[in-house]
Amino acid sequence: MSLSRRAVLSQLLLGAPLGGALLASRAYTQAPTRTSWLNPYRDATSRLIHASTKDDFAWRRLAELTDTFGHRLSGSENLERAIGWAAETMKRDGLENVRTEPVMVPRWVRGRESAEIVSPPRHPVAILGLGGSIATPPEGIEADILVVNGFDELRERAAEVKGRIVLFNAPFTTYGDTVNYRTGGPRSASQLGAVAALVRSVGPTGLRTPHTGSLQYGPSAPPIPAASVSAEDADRIARLVARGITVRVRLKMEAHAEADAPSANVVGEIRGRLRPQEIVLLGGHLDSWDVGTGASDDGVGCIATWEAARLIMSLGLRPRRTIRVVLWVNEENGLRGANAYAEKHAAQAADHVFALESDSGVFEPASLGFTGSSGARTVMRDIASLLSPLGMAEMVGGGGGADIGPISQAGNTPMAAYLGNPARYFAIHHTDADTVERIAPAEVAKAAAAIAVVAYVVAEMPDQLPR
Amino acid sequence: MSLSRRAVLSQLLLGAPLGGALLASRAYTQAPTRTSWLNPYRDATSRLIHASTKDDFAWRRLAELTDTFGHRLSGSENLERAIGWAAETMKRDGLENVRTEPVMVPRWVRGRESAEIVSPPRHPVAILGLGGSIATPPEGIEADILVVNGFDELRERAAEVKGRIVLFNAPFTTYGDTVNYRTGGPRSASQLGAVAALVRSVGPTGLRTPHTGSLQYGPSAPPIPAASVSAEDADRIARLVARGITVRVRLKMEAHAEADAPSANVVGEIRGRLRPQEIVLLGGHLDSWDVGTGASDDGVGCIATWEAARLIMSLGLRPRRTIRVVLWVNEENGLRGANAYAEKHAAQAADHVFALESDSGVFEPASLGFTGSSGARTVMRDIASLLSPLGMAEMVGGGGGADIGPISQAGNTPMAAYLGNPARYFAIHHTDADTVERIAPAEVAKAAAAIAVVAYVVAEMPDQLPR
Repeated sequence: MSLSRRAVLSQLLLGAPLGGALLASRAYTQAPTRTSWLNPYRDATSRLIHASTKDDFAWRRLAELTDTFGHRLSGSENLERAIGWAAETMKRDGLENVRTEPVMVPRWVRGRESAEIVSPPRHPVAILGLGGSIATPPEGIEADILVVNGFDELRERAAEVKGRIVLFNAPFTTYGDTVNYRTGGPRSASQLGAVAALVRSVGPTGLRTPHTGSLQYGPSAPPIPAASVSAEDADRIARLVARGITVRVRLKMEAHAEADAPSANVVGEIRGRLRPQEIVLLGGHLDSWDVGTGASDDGVGCIATWEAARLIMSLGLRPRRTIRVVLWVNEENGLRGANAYAEKHAAQAADHVFALESDSGVFEPASLGFTGSSGARTVMRDIASLLSPLGMAEMVGGGGGADIGPISQAGNTPMAAYLGNPARYFAIHHTDADTVERIAPAEVAKAAAAIAVVAYVVAEMPDQLPR
Repeated sequence: MSLSRRAVLSQLLLGAPLGGALLASRAYTQAPTRTSWLNPYRDATSRLIHASTKDDFAWRRLAELTDTFGHRLSGSENLERAIGWAAETMKRDGLENVRTEPVMVPRWVRGRESAEIVSPPRHPVAILGLGGSIATPPEGIEADILVVNGFDELRERAAEVKGRIVLFNAPFTTYGDTVNYRTGGPRSASQLGAVAALVRSVGPTGLRTPHTGSLQYGPSAPPIPAASVSAEDADRIARLVARGITVRVRLKMEAHAEADAPSANVVGEIRGRLRPQEIVLLGGHLDSWDVGTGASDDGVGCIATWEAARLIMSLGLRPRRTIRVVLWVNEENGLRGANAYAEKHAAQAADHVFALESDSGVFEPASLGFTGSSGARTVMRDIASLLSPLGMAEMVGGGGGADIGPISQAGNTPMAAYLGNPARYFAIHHTDADTVERIAPAEVAKAAAAIAVVAYVVAEMPDQLPR
């Protein structure tokens, strides 16, 4: 999940009828037997849940993906190999119209990087350069640190910024709040003359664990090198400075952008039995940051949505409408895959009757989020009641995602999200610790089962989900 | 805490009357008023506990040590600077006979190091070279991996070892059990012709966190480069191999030993009021591995024992016997400080009436361990009852430590240990995450208070603790 996802989400949420939840809730209470319309789908629901949760197939596939290809930054050989494997394996699964839809993606290369406190005596600082950052000169940038706890303090101490490395040391509250220092901190520091920026990692204190992620330079200030630092290193520097010690840091980064590289979204389908032109869209993104193995962000979103389709297919359920799985590329640093899809399929945007994204992990307790009209929400709440064997009958507000955003905006398409527990997700988000070991097989199986049930019913029910 | 500590402990425990605990327990039950002999010390106990727990002085001193000097491997400038600071600060505290007792220490230098899977395509492996390891050639060692889950499997697969890098992938159970792969694995692999060894980190799965520590080469096989790998990387390699994939790794290490370097134990005292030649010995070790900032291993042991003496002194309590604090050097990779002390003070060994080491962290729930005769244990159990305001009235079996071992063996000295919660301790042991952030101020204060009370009573009571 990247910042751009949040921006898209906010935009969509603001435009959505937020009273829908209440209305739907009331309707549901007034008519306890209204879900009898779901009776034709109860047998398929049971079979899908059983088929998904009976073994660890999906987890093993996730392990195969992340073990074999590792992290998968846009433009990397790892990603291209993973794309080839995914398309081939989808075909072997029996999905239909399996194809790759080409798109050029940015290629940012981290290179070597290091930071150390050089005064008082040398100590390494645990960093990860921020995605999109420029390099330092080869000999590095050495400067005194100015520690600020946020944008307000930066403004108050504007006169001290010039020539220094600014350390944004804002404690982690929520991702949505704290990520602003990662994306906007370097730009704000540069505007005041800073030579580089360090940002306390956007996540809880780990085990000296820096969290990378994208930054956004602006037109009004020159780009400066920027890196995240572990919470412990940020705290240590802040304590030294609070004792009146001048902390001098040398930052070395080779980060740079190279020419755009060819890549592709991976697409596979179950063609609809009666209305194949109507599309239920599912997916996660196959690219990841260049740390860890991109298991929770977002290998598991790819595997869970793909597995949902595979389960439906394997049980011989061919719904009325087409179910389409897209494994997106470049969610993390460009959203080129999502935008290319929206452009390529613009004429069919309105035929996208429902879109679901899984890009928040699958950690328990997970929930299903939804964004749509109050009419759509009422129907979705009914459908969610089928997930009670999975403990997921309660839907939450706010579904969607960065990758399904562009096509859904164009199509006014109701959107859902599979939402893992954010505390566990953000503990490893964009770190070297985002690996398959953290995810339980039952968590992947449950996600695949829930997505399969929702997708199947939305694709099979006689009427489209209301707009 | 190093392996050598465990070896010393085992040796001492085997020689100790282990029935002491039972006998003492019975005696205590039969005579519930026997602790009235402690009445003269109750006021001092209350004052010491209050003085220690009223603020975060000890934690702030620990933060000053670890923030300012960072990690402190034997032979490093960081350690020598920390030694100078400790001696000066002890003098400012008003401790007496503050001095450094010189000792030459080994100097092992990690240098740069890396490992990567080169087939299937390149993926970094999170490693930390093992202390004492030799280097690889500059271009590294590239070989196929043989994964074994322990020494038995290594023997069974002896014919496959030659020319390969052996990965010992034994899951972490307890430190005492699992550390054998770190210390002895490289030697065993070399005997069978391995070109290098990787060892799954001795600790629970962290956040892609390797744990360093010492290895022991043997005379019967050539030394080979050896490194710890994170649990996640070990699992990943093992899964790839289990799928029938040949995993090829390139290991590069610059590790090497340099000439021994001058260093010193730091010693400070409260001279005894009546029997100054009798010594109550307290201490932790000031050296650490060259990762993290050596906060729990063992900055906090130094600070807690030193703080115990400072508290006694600051309250104007001058006990009958001398309380001596020693901040040892080279516990981690040589025990030169402990051996030099035992040699220098050999003639006074029998005057060491009690020795306490803090080298297991201070994480809650902590306990007090003791090793001594049943008579000594009975007295110590009484004394421990004074710690009930700290929730530490229950003593456990097994006290001692690597640094107090040599002098205590020579003097037949009863030994105690302040023992932090091992689960929290080994989660960060010998890792980059051993920093002061993990330790709560109340945990350090409690350790200092408990050690101060025990040291004061043992130093003040009319008779020596029985041998």
